[in-house]
Amino acid sequence: MTIKDLFTIQKKNEITEGLKLELKGWIVSNRGNEKIRFLTLNDGSSISNLQIVAKGKDIENYSVSNISLGTSVIVSGNIHLTPSAQQPFELVLESLTIINTVDEDFPIQKKETSLEFLREIPHLRNKTNLFKCIMLIRNSLSFEIHKYFQEHNFLYMASPIITSNDGEGAGETLLVDDESKDYFFKQKAFLGVTGQLHAEAYAQSFKKVYTFGPTFRAENSHTSRHLAEFWMIEPEVAFYKLKDIIFLADDLLKTSIRNTIKNFGAEMNYLDSLNPGLLDNLNKFLDNTLTIIEYKDVVEKLKNYTEHFIEKDIHFGMDLASEHEKFLSEQIIKGPVAVINYPKDIKAFYMYQNDDNKTVAAFDLLVPGIGELIGGSQREERYQKLLDRMNELHIPTNPLQWYLDLRRFGYAPTSGFGIGFERLVMYVTGIANIRDVIPFPRVAGQIKM
Amino acid sequence: MTIKDLFTIQKKNEITEGLKLELKGWIVSNRGNEKIRFLTLNDGSSISNLQIVAKGKDIENYSVSNISLGTSVIVSGNIHLTPSAQQPFELVLESLTIINTVDEDFPIQKKETSLEFLREIPHLRNKTNLFKCIMLIRNSLSFEIHKYFQEHNFLYMASPIITSNDGEGAGETLLVDDESKDYFFKQKAFLGVTGQLHAEAYAQSFKKVYTFGPTFRAENSHTSRHLAEFWMIEPEVAFYKLKDIIFLADDLLKTSIRNTIKNFGAEMNYLDSLNPGLLDNLNKFLDNTLTIIEYKDVVEKLKNYTEHFIEKDIHFGMDLASEHEKFLSEQIIKGPVAVINYPKDIKAFYMYQNDDNKTVAAFDLLVPGIGELIGGSQREERYQKLLDRMNELHIPTNPLQWYLDLRRFGYAPTSGFGIGFERLVMYVTGIANIRDVIPFPRVAGQIKM
Repeated sequence: MTIKDLFTIQKKNEITEGLKLELKGWIVSNRGNEKIRFLTLNDGSSISNLQIVAKGKDIENYSVSNISLGTSVIVSGNIHLTPSAQQPFELVLESLTIINTVDEDFPIQKKETSLEFLREIPHLRNKTNLFKCIMLIRNSLSFEIHKYFQEHNFLYMASPIITSNDGEGAGETLLVDDESKDYFFKQKAFLGVTGQLHAEAYAQSFKKVYTFGPTFRAENSHTSRHLAEFWMIEPEVAFYKLKDIIFLADDLLKTSIRNTIKNFGAEMNYLDSLNPGLLDNLNKFLDNTLTIIEYKDVVEKLKNYTEHFIEKDIHFGMDLASEHEKFLSEQIIKGPVAVINYPKDIKAFYMYQNDDNKTVAAFDLLVPGIGELIGGSQREERYQKLLDRMNELHIPTNPLQWYLDLRRFGYAPTSGFGIGFERLVMYVTGIANIRDVIPFPRVAGQIKM
Repeated sequence: MTIKDLFTIQKKNEITEGLKLELKGWIVSNRGNEKIRFLTLNDGSSISNLQIVAKGKDIENYSVSNISLGTSVIVSGNIHLTPSAQQPFELVLESLTIINTVDEDFPIQKKETSLEFLREIPHLRNKTNLFKCIMLIRNSLSFEIHKYFQEHNFLYMASPIITSNDGEGAGETLLVDDESKDYFFKQKAFLGVTGQLHAEAYAQSFKKVYTFGPTFRAENSHTSRHLAEFWMIEPEVAFYKLKDIIFLADDLLKTSIRNTIKNFGAEMNYLDSLNPGLLDNLNKFLDNTLTIIEYKDVVEKLKNYTEHFIEKDIHFGMDLASEHEKFLSEQIIKGPVAVINYPKDIKAFYMYQNDDNKTVAAFDLLVPGIGELIGGSQREERYQKLLDRMNELHIPTNPLQWYLDLRRFGYAPTSGFGIGFERLVMYVTGIANIRDVIPFPRVAGQIKM
């Protein structure tokens, strides 16, 4: 029985006076006097704590007064219902075993510590309330995503991490090598920036597939939205077109977020208290139809707001900057928005070329506070069109002949997208810096632990 | 509705004559004459195919006779129940749209092709029955493992892939670098060989955690059991000792395998037909208590069988070779076996040192056909013992001071293990070469696609 379970059965009125329990965890507060002491215990299942009451001789027997924050313990006792108190039940102590105490230089204290300071100790920040919330929400979103795909007949596939393909652009990939710098794989090998191309091959037999794994970008930008190592979810679906895949993205997000809010109420309420409006905004997204808008219409709209931007030259053909994306979703649409049919010159070679000869059947899903959360497209299904586009862009076709060949063997056109998982966790938790939503963040010039 | 769904509702007697359906997928066979033709369709949900019957004018209208194996199609029609036929139902064709045909050099043909040949075309081998089975089972095992952990209150955590720690031994790690070979992270960085140390930090607040991600080994050995890139599952549990974690490993394996056999009957039967005895052996494992045996007793037993081994010098202190591990589980125990309390000199520095001063509280779970499937241990909880062991082994303590420090801040002793996920897939599918149970295998000197 976890503390989360206790609160769940209490809400269903199924908790009984006198219920005997043994619990293991960490003491997070200790107050009272010589006659009565109140300890609170956290067991990691929730940010909710269990209050433990120690009285009389037990205080002395178990040295309760000296137990400091962070001590690991095993306690047993009986549940006492306290319907008129702030916490609906407590544990009346019967026995307590101290497993290990904390040294005096323990850096996690009751008082608030800054996120910057906590980033220096990624192996300990998980002991704070805030990081417990973030990681419980991260865990929930991850499982809800797996569950959603499994319930919708998707196959989870492992796209390779190490590839011979240096990704979509040059210079943004990390090289893999052996210590002798002699090329372990007898050729240049890279850490993958996407699992999509390989997923496309598997969609040609399993129809609906997804990846969920780490991807890498050798980006030198030190922003609050970029990591060198981050997790991506990339579904790829045969017989789906642009609109189908946008609907999938919307339904996946709504289902995962709705279930997370339902199952992690204590954590979401805590995050909402730090960032008022968080839950309101998420609920507004859940209750409304996703807005879909053409890129060309976005450009026209943004032209009316140039005074808000650093980059004021708004024109068809431009890549939207983060400031434009955020402004669009935060100020104009006031919620998540899917922008579709981008100019082909700012998008990847494999996207379906629309009849206008100018745009591709791509979409970006932009959300308030983050900007781009999802990017995807219908894939170019016409062998010759794809080959011509690769040649135009000087992409070597030889290493990707296998990818071209998919179009020659009973090809079922596919569409797909990628979700930056950490950006999703930021969106749902309201956390502003991506380094705070992954246990051990990796950025240029720095590896901690 | 998928073809898998159709067979599920048929088994429950819930399928109805005349049910109207539209299905998308690939044609896998085409036989008959001018008056009646039988196509079979696969949609990737199962290896079970749906038989489609085309008669009279429809054959001509939809050019049915010319449809070759591998063609992608959309078909619609009505279900006709055929209780006396080999397949319990078929689809009477109403309309058919050919999406794409296959070029003549399509390398997947009806006749059997060798696994070696298929390894050359990892982007297409997923279109064979065998690889559909393997990947459906892989998908099932992966989700069952996530589900098991979530139902048992484990937190899924992302241990970092890129680390500054070069693992347990030297020279077996892959280096990460930028194109200029100038160290993107301003220090040597490696691809992680384990997520365990980081998981231990998270077990200190969430109590039960697990990782499920790719790990890397720069092994030059070209065996059928090794990959340079493979997936590992690593649970770590606070307040657990050696016996608790062995029980967890056993229960996790049995639950995941039992549910997979139940949910993927067609695929498991097909694999059993290729490898008779597969299901019998798995069921024997499911029905029996796991054998636990001391390393020192294993050594005594193996001494009686030296004529079977290449390495005949069996003595206390030796590392068991794969031949010994396999012989123990296949010939002596005749099933999975957990070997415990290994000599400390052949095991990692972080394992709990037993009172005998010779062994550590480690276990390896060995299974027939594979050898080592799982390795784990109780972790050394005593700061000084751990530090002394690191010094003895000349492991630099500075980069791992954070790991030592976990013991100073309310440490709850933990135990954990790692499952090589591909080896688990090999065990359940009966596939002998690890390169055939991962979509795009990576081994020394070779990257395909």
